[in-house]
Amino acid sequence: MTASLRPSGRAPDQLRPVSIERRYTRHAEGSVLVSFGDTRVLCTASVEEKVPPFLRGKGEGWVTAEYGMLPRATKERTQREAARGGQGGRTMEIQRLIGRSLRACVDRAALGERTITLDCDVLQADGGTRTAAITGAYVALIDAIRGLKQARLIKKDPVHGAIAAVSVGIYRGVPVLDLDYAEDANCDTDMNVVMNDGGGFIELQGTAEGHAFRRDELDALLALAGKGVDELVALQREALDRP
Amino acid sequence: MTASLRPSGRAPDQLRPVSIERRYTRHAEGSVLVSFGDTRVLCTASVEEKVPPFLRGKGEGWVTAEYGMLPRATKERTQREAARGGQGGRTMEIQRLIGRSLRACVDRAALGERTITLDCDVLQADGGTRTAAITGAYVALIDAIRGLKQARLIKKDPVHGAIAAVSVGIYRGVPVLDLDYAEDANCDTDMNVVMNDGGGFIELQGTAEGHAFRRDELDALLALAGKGVDELVALQREALDRP
Amino acid sequence: MTASLRPSGRAPDQLRPVSIERRYTRHAEGSVLVSFGDTRVLCTASVEEKVPPFLRGKGEGWVTAEYGMLPRATKERTQREAARGGQGGRTMEIQRLIGRSLRACVDRAALGERTITLDCDVLQADGGTRTAAITGAYVALIDAIRGLKQARLIKKDPVHGAIAAVSVGIYRGVPVLDLDYAEDANCDTDMNVVMNDGGGFIELQGTAEGHAFRRDELDALLALAGKGVDELVALQREALDRP
Amino acid sequence: MTASLRPSGRAPDQLRPVSIERRYTRHAEGSVLVSFGDTRVLCTASVEEKVPPFLRGKGEGWVTAEYGMLPRATKERTQREAARGGQGGRTMEIQRLIGRSLRACVDRAALGERTITLDCDVLQADGGTRTAAITGAYVALIDAIRGLKQARLIKKDPVHGAIAAVSVGIYRGVPVLDLDYAEDANCDTDMNVVMNDGGGFIELQGTAEGHAFRRDELDALLALAGKGVDELVALQREALDRP
Amino acid sequence: MTASLRPSGRAPDQLRPVSIERRYTRHAEGSVLVSFGDTRVLCTASVEEKVPPFLRGKGEGWVTAEYGMLPRATKERTQREAARGGQGGRTMEIQRLIGRSLRACVDRAALGERTITLDCDVLQADGGTRTAAITGAYVALIDAIRGLKQARLIKKDPVHGAIAAVSVGIYRGVPVLDLDYAEDANCDTDMNVVMNDGGGFIELQGTAEGHAFRRDELDALLALAGKGVDELVALQREALDRP
Amino acid sequence: MTASLRPSGRAPDQLRPVSIERRYTRHAEGSVLVSFGDTRVLCTASVEEKVPPFLRGKGEGWVTAEYGMLPRATKERTQREAARGGQGGRTMEIQRLIGRSLRACVDRAALGERTITLDCDVLQADGGTRTAAITGAYVALIDAIRGLKQARLIKKDPVHGAIAAVSVGIYRGVPVLDLDYAEDANCDTDMNVVMNDGGGFIELQGTAEGHAFRRDELDALLALAGKGVDELVALQREALDRP
Repeated sequence: MTASLRPSGRAPDQLRPVSIERRYTRHAEGSVLVSFGDTRVLCTASVEEKVPPFLRGKGEGWVTAEYGMLPRATKERTQREAARGGQGGRTMEIQRLIGRSLRACVDRAALGERTITLDCDVLQADGGTRTAAITGAYVALIDAIRGLKQARLIKKDPVHGAIAAVSVGIYRGVPVLDLDYAEDANCDTDMNVVMNDGGGFIELQGTAEGHAFRRDELDALLALAGKGVDELVALQREALDRP
Repeated sequence: MTASLRPSGRAPDQLRPVSIERRYTRHAEGSVLVSFGDTRVLCTASVEEKVPPFLRGKGEGWVTAEYGMLPRATKERTQREAARGGQGGRTMEIQRLIGRSLRACVDRAALGERTITLDCDVLQADGGTRTAAITGAYVALIDAIRGLKQARLIKKDPVHGAIAAVSVGIYRGVPVLDLDYAEDANCDTDMNVVMNDGGGFIELQGTAEGHAFRRDELDALLALAGKGVDELVALQREALDRP
Repeated sequence: MTASLRPSGRAPDQLRPVSIERRYTRHAEGSVLVSFGDTRVLCTASVEEKVPPFLRGKGEGWVTAEYGMLPRATKERTQREAARGGQGGRTMEIQRLIGRSLRACVDRAALGERTITLDCDVLQADGGTRTAAITGAYVALIDAIRGLKQARLIKKDPVHGAIAAVSVGIYRGVPVLDLDYAEDANCDTDMNVVMNDGGGFIELQGTAEGHAFRRDELDALLALAGKGVDELVALQREALDRP
Repeated sequence: MTASLRPSGRAPDQLRPVSIERRYTRHAEGSVLVSFGDTRVLCTASVEEKVPPFLRGKGEGWVTAEYGMLPRATKERTQREAARGGQGGRTMEIQRLIGRSLRACVDRAALGERTITLDCDVLQADGGTRTAAITGAYVALIDAIRGLKQARLIKKDPVHGAIAAVSVGIYRGVPVLDLDYAEDANCDTDMNVVMNDGGGFIELQGTAEGHAFRRDELDALLALAGKGVDELVALQREALDRP
Repeated sequence: MTASLRPSGRAPDQLRPVSIERRYTRHAEGSVLVSFGDTRVLCTASVEEKVPPFLRGKGEGWVTAEYGMLPRATKERTQREAARGGQGGRTMEIQRLIGRSLRACVDRAALGERTITLDCDVLQADGGTRTAAITGAYVALIDAIRGLKQARLIKKDPVHGAIAAVSVGIYRGVPVLDLDYAEDANCDTDMNVVMNDGGGFIELQGTAEGHAFRRDELDALLALAGKGVDELVALQREALDRP
Repeated sequence: MTASLRPSGRAPDQLRPVSIERRYTRHAEGSVLVSFGDTRVLCTASVEEKVPPFLRGKGEGWVTAEYGMLPRATKERTQREAARGGQGGRTMEIQRLIGRSLRACVDRAALGERTITLDCDVLQADGGTRTAAITGAYVALIDAIRGLKQARLIKKDPVHGAIAAVSVGIYRGVPVLDLDYAEDANCDTDMNVVMNDGGGFIELQGTAEGHAFRRDELDALLALAGKGVDELVALQREALDRP
């Protein structure tokens, strides 16, 4: 019986309850509070009419991301990165992943010479903060793009397809979907999968924590991820259809 | 008619709607979302069983604060301090003020050799973030202290009295209470007042933005601040009385 | 008898011996060594024909301050901030206060697109370094402005009024003027007051170190500060009248 | 004809010429110059009889990695990270990957309370520096472990299996093995695969640069990676068998 | 006629007027204001009862130096190193030179496990700040050592001999002693020479600014330096003989 | 018998075996691996068509150097400066010396508005890294200049004469040439001498490690240095004559 396997009692292929709340704060062009269970990430999209130096004058836009964690989003207080004097390796790795993932669905020429920055700040962490961040940032991005279209600053929609992300892993020998912290801290393999709504892969990052994972385990994980992303994309659409 | 004076239509001596939501996140020993109108600050209290080096072995505890602002809490996106490589002067000034203010109501010997860190992170800014932070951090502090008492880690209550803070200023020649951003950006004098529930002053920080302020103006501002703090202390009590 | 109250034997309303020595170093446009008793601060005013980015092209000037302390200005050697990798919170707080205070007496449009930087470096510390710095920096500023006028770089005098600062506090229950280190380290309330020569307040920063201070104590402190600033302004004038 | 596909004229499933030179420098416990074509990385293994704070007293060792690139390893000179004031996000991401990969084959209890640091410094870059680094660092690690065994500092061999890494990608629509810079800069999908000699996966990091990659493309890439790692493991063995 | 050669009208082998003022500030164990003409450096010696980690438990003391320049010691304002986030290369080079030079006359075993830090802060710069700093720091060091002897913290005098420093250079083809800024900025060769009172060399740092210098020029420079150091040592003695 | 004096068995006036290998890496305009015995430094010359801000529009070029040491170039692993957050004092001192030395043989007007950066990275250290770096960087510089001439980017040869460097010191009372680590760590006096092929001095940096050195010792050291530089210049020429 699977109920006894996962600490949360979920079935192996079951996502945590996911909620996507748009317009969570009022200043940003897109502002989404996304929850994957107890993981809560505030994702804002900020539009600025400038591009980084390496793109100036090329007629292309830029999409980038920054990631942060409030000091007490975690069980033990984590030192504030601003107080420590800079972003750590984990933060940089995650924000680079979010940025690459979202750029994968944007036609930067159609965006025009402007930058959209996706700030993903974890208010509460319970595993899967980066996948929640990507899933929420996509919705914030769409809201920002809608604003640009309404203001007639862009003509052609620069976004093609939808992007969502989920983690999968092998927990006590069983492939499971959307790991929470209790599972993440004890799993053998942990993989973050970013996919589009056509079932194509955008990013795949798998790590063997305990023993190396076999090809058949990988296949099972990818199938779970595909199911999870399909459900997340449906939830994104639902949220974006709300007025 | 005063309604026409303030952009918000408030009376000169009227606070913005204030809400104090406890247990906003689940990991911290105290976690409060405080709102002064559109200003929203998440205040968490973290208890750690250690003290800074200068206090080791002295049998006293420590209370300190850190302050941060999410990049898009503001109208224009502000660069993330962690990405910039350190906390700026304004941040340091504010977190030092919050720390001093809260220490003013704590008997550090009764607290024992432990540190309570008050993290105040602004989710949305509309003026008065430091006064909202102090007011909310006090409630988070009390929740953390209650936890220590319940766990029988401390015997004597280390907190004496209540602490709250409010801004006052001279806007278009009129002394007003609890400035929002529209007022703050255009006022002549801006003062942050931290008081206790006995009407005593803890901190007073007044700045003449336009012209120097006269003694009679100062008197009027202090009276307004006293009224505001009384109301805030009542709201803190109400919040703390909720189960 | 008050002689027994203050460690220095001063009357409660008595300033320390104050000296203001102009042209202390020769390169700066204004260079003042100010002493409040054993506290000695070198204040230089540097004129540069440029403004910070946020003011470019607006036809306005800028006045800013930096503060530093030689490592052995203090009883115990303090680590050099340059060696520690940056300015600490206290330094930033003080230099922001000095800058705001001096800007309060300058018409920045009349100054034209140039920056005056007031560097206040403490050679010897015995309490009250920030108030000595403000009082001395004002004199250095005037010397720099006189140079600009002589060079016919500005027409209209951009300075209105005089600015001076003094600390006041409650020491052993008695309000006293101009605290030295022995008093500062043991006082209940400590307030720095920046005023102009018209008796108007520019900055007011009061902190309850021991217990909260009452309204009547505040009134007594403000009266002392007014007396002190009047005397300091007279000393500034005297110094500026010397050839 | 495949010769026309790849700029180097290699077959799609062909590695670049690989060389593994042990004892390249004399101070390190392991020192390997690894070349994947024109990519040359110096990998040293340093043994230190201490562990990071989080492991002290736990009877376990640690294996970690640092990565660097000489400023002129690249076509255009890259600014030195030490001069820029810190390691960038790409560097951190890569060194974390190398460290995780090598830890996957080490029994840290058998290693005992000591740290092995793998420094991977790129002397010349032509694509695939991180996979060359992992492949070379494994050999340097083995040399360091052999030294510990010879010195009788450890009894049980802490290393299980071999680890090697290779990049695969889709270049002009064709899955290819071991991308050089010319291919890497123009490919649609880029994947770094770390595997052990049993065909198990240690790390999988795939990124869609152009369009999302399909499941059948992923399968082809994984097959190529498996072939490449098999060849690399054979070359590692050969190098380690040399006296 | 030499009067026309040097901008200051000095003879080629003539020092600037040198003054050495002891007890310039009151907290430091040694505090000396040294002037070489318009170059004024405040040198303090601070005694701390601890040694750096690499010396702990070895029964030896340490002598080290730090160097700084007030922002407006120079003609143009120099950015404050603390504000810039760290000490620059020139500062590090100079403070390492001062530290090495002073250590050369100290028997560190006789000093005992304590550190003497020589802080050399330039109040006004007109060339030759590092040689003035070394010359003044020696006097501050002796005052600090005298204090240790008076307090009977050390028995044997740890200082052997005297140390002084002077610059020499080739200005318009002529070897000259003790360059001021006007000469330093236009000289062909610039050499800083640290010697002891026995005529031995402690440090020699010569730089060809224009063309390479010949052996006979070097000989002439060294002779000048010897003469200058002899005079400086006499002035140090005179200052130390004053009560 | 001198063979017994030096740990390496060299005669007092004997250089270590020196090799100069050009085109060691392929991207840089000049790339030289220089070995002085077991000291191996990779020196690359990078040409960039820009100059630092202080030279813009002046029609002059710039030559600068950076120095680094791989973490395990040394007996004990040295912490990576990029990981430590910046370059240390020793690094800055050395790279400033290399830059000044090479600029001494370059006519910057003839170079035109471009920068040549000499990166000197120590792969293996056994004493004398800075003198090996200068000697090797000269050869890399010439290769870069030859490339500029071949590309007809410059007309007049901007380099006059050759530059080489060697260390000398007093080891066990005997002046010796080209100290290796075993000697350097135990010598009384250590001097780095940079000279040109005409026997002129470019830089002279001597330090008394044990006792002060006398004038006759200095003379002996300078004679040794002259002999060493002559031999090094011949080796540079030989290397540059190879096709």
